[in-house]
Amino acid sequence: MLGNFSYCNPTKLYFGKDALNGLKEELPKYGKNVLLVYGGGSIKNNGIYDKVMAVLSECGKTVYEDAGVMPNPTVDKLKEGVQRARDCNADFILAVGGGSVCDYSKAVSISVNCKEDPWEKYYIRFEDVDPDCKIIPVGCVLTMVGTGSEMNGGSVITNHKQKLKIGHVFGENVFPKFSILNPEFTYTLPKYQMVAGFYDIMSHILEQYFSGEDDNTSDYLSEGLLRSLIHSSEIAVKNPTDYEARSNIMWTATWALNTLIAKGKTTDWEVHMLGQAVGAVTDATHGMTLAAVSMAYYKFIMPYGLKKFVRYAVNVWGVNPVGKTDETVAEEGLAAMEAWMRRIGLVMNLTDLGVNEGNFEDVVKATLVMEGGYKVLTQDDIRAILKASL
Amino acid sequence: MLGNFSYCNPTKLYFGKDALNGLKEELPKYGKNVLLVYGGGSIKNNGIYDKVMAVLSECGKTVYEDAGVMPNPTVDKLKEGVQRARDCNADFILAVGGGSVCDYSKAVSISVNCKEDPWEKYYIRFEDVDPDCKIIPVGCVLTMVGTGSEMNGGSVITNHKQKLKIGHVFGENVFPKFSILNPEFTYTLPKYQMVAGFYDIMSHILEQYFSGEDDNTSDYLSEGLLRSLIHSSEIAVKNPTDYEARSNIMWTATWALNTLIAKGKTTDWEVHMLGQAVGAVTDATHGMTLAAVSMAYYKFIMPYGLKKFVRYAVNVWGVNPVGKTDETVAEEGLAAMEAWMRRIGLVMNLTDLGVNEGNFEDVVKATLVMEGGYKVLTQDDIRAILKASL
Repeated sequence: MLGNFSYCNPTKLYFGKDALNGLKEELPKYGKNVLLVYGGGSIKNNGIYDKVMAVLSECGKTVYEDAGVMPNPTVDKLKEGVQRARDCNADFILAVGGGSVCDYSKAVSISVNCKEDPWEKYYIRFEDVDPDCKIIPVGCVLTMVGTGSEMNGGSVITNHKQKLKIGHVFGENVFPKFSILNPEFTYTLPKYQMVAGFYDIMSHILEQYFSGEDDNTSDYLSEGLLRSLIHSSEIAVKNPTDYEARSNIMWTATWALNTLIAKGKTTDWEVHMLGQAVGAVTDATHGMTLAAVSMAYYKFIMPYGLKKFVRYAVNVWGVNPVGKTDETVAEEGLAAMEAWMRRIGLVMNLTDLGVNEGNFEDVVKATLVMEGGYKVLTQDDIRAILKASL
Repeated sequence: MLGNFSYCNPTKLYFGKDALNGLKEELPKYGKNVLLVYGGGSIKNNGIYDKVMAVLSECGKTVYEDAGVMPNPTVDKLKEGVQRARDCNADFILAVGGGSVCDYSKAVSISVNCKEDPWEKYYIRFEDVDPDCKIIPVGCVLTMVGTGSEMNGGSVITNHKQKLKIGHVFGENVFPKFSILNPEFTYTLPKYQMVAGFYDIMSHILEQYFSGEDDNTSDYLSEGLLRSLIHSSEIAVKNPTDYEARSNIMWTATWALNTLIAKGKTTDWEVHMLGQAVGAVTDATHGMTLAAVSMAYYKFIMPYGLKKFVRYAVNVWGVNPVGKTDETVAEEGLAAMEAWMRRIGLVMNLTDLGVNEGNFEDVVKATLVMEGGYKVLTQDDIRAILKASL
């Protein structure tokens, strides 16, 4: 735990089959006008919309709706949402959905009273929320697991015109005030989305794990989360309504990206930069973009962080190191990871996600370079990794 | 993650060599009169007192002192502290010390405006703080690692007349508002106290781990914390000023008992009941009382929770299970644990802590029985475990 840091996570979580009862406890703390944000309308088919509306009505709220948030929420949609929040004089934003709906809701919450263009200010110039800018409080009812957006200040927005998908991690004042985590609310999600979410969790942990040479408690916590995720994902793929597996995964997802396992250490995030570039160009599902580039990336950087890849192989994948070279142990770890990825049904190449000769260079160009991993990538490195992922 | 639960931890942590800077950020949020609580005065010898006083002065606070908090803070001392807090009209309590000083400060904070006898109300009748009882906010500068008191609502008070040492875990409103965690502030602690603290951490994790048959992410997190603790404790015992080891242990201690790893599962706490009975009768160091009873306790309950003991042996102690019976694997795990305990210098029997024929039955009588472990102990079980610990 080298370096100085502070830790504070103000989000209150309500977890379990009765988690929606938490909404009744929380809503009275906020004003009358609630902007209900959701996506394509699946919550109307699976009954979650009605359940949430019943609580809102019981709490005497006036509800305004902002529906149609897309999987990779766009800057155009953000503009629309800001206008809607202003028009209804929203006191509170209730996000009902997955990470995209949460991310978008946070973006709206900090943009309603922002005096500048929020895309330029928050995502291009990476600036913080001005101290005098009133943030509309956000609460979250989670229906898809993966992004961790329910307990952090992250918000990713896509600009198709500029072919950019950019995430900004904001401070505690932007975190959801509360999140409702009912594993049963994730049951009806299509399998493709479910396993994409599983890999998003995996990638969040690995981005924080594969960085630094120091001995750190955070890495031990990461290994625990990884083992729990690997174990439960295999069960959930076979039986998506296994409550124990789905609930473990939901809890793991939250702790994979709520700042804890990054404390006291450096982090990487290059897989997310590669994946987000793919997403910006193809609009493919986020978790699948990460899966499609991961094996090529990790094989590429393995020699630069060999010691950590050996530890990963032994502690996470149970590789027996006796009598083997470090390279062999590390390779066996990555092979075990790849086999697991194929077993749970992830997309393993970029061709399947729509990357081709025509847009390949756009992806290369859209890839931002991070500096916390075991190797700072050059443009040629990026091109080589993406080529190996086709 | 079975069952419904909520999670919220409002304590802000400042961690690292410069953590005391956090005190400057936090103090201005509270009133002028600060009650500075500390123990036997070691903070005057190691310079921490002067550093803290400089910040208090810089922040323009009027400081009143409540010194002499003993290792197992008593109900008589609590009475004294309450009077002192009332006399100085304390707006804020700053605890500078280890778990005892933190626990005591929390007890004072909820007793100043309590209309009844706090010992009777909070510790004997296990009641919560009344909603109309104003709690004096507490902040903490930690100088000894182990209890986790810096980020939870726990408070243990001892009544020598009644031969009782009772802990009550209060809600979020009793948690410290902030805690300052500088690993270097723990360097001057005598080795006996240091390793006692290490075992307190170990025991906190095991009390939450050895309970329940369900598959739970919390148990994976516990395994991560255990491995980190075991690894770093061996380094710290050899070199107490190894910053990385001491900082990992400090962070592990906080997360071992801040509610996280108990979420979604049942817990045991019988080792603490046995240890606290020993403490009530002998006034021995808390962590050592836990160490002295642990091996006998775990050997006794092992057959009732065999599956978990096998998991513990393999995942925490690296026991190779191939070709062995479950019993053998579990026993090898406990043997590895015992060897580690001896290696780091823990007290392994009650005789060394002052338990003898004359007071043995007092300890038996003072031991409370918990119901979350793998076996609910009878009086005969307790007697047998304590006898095996002599």
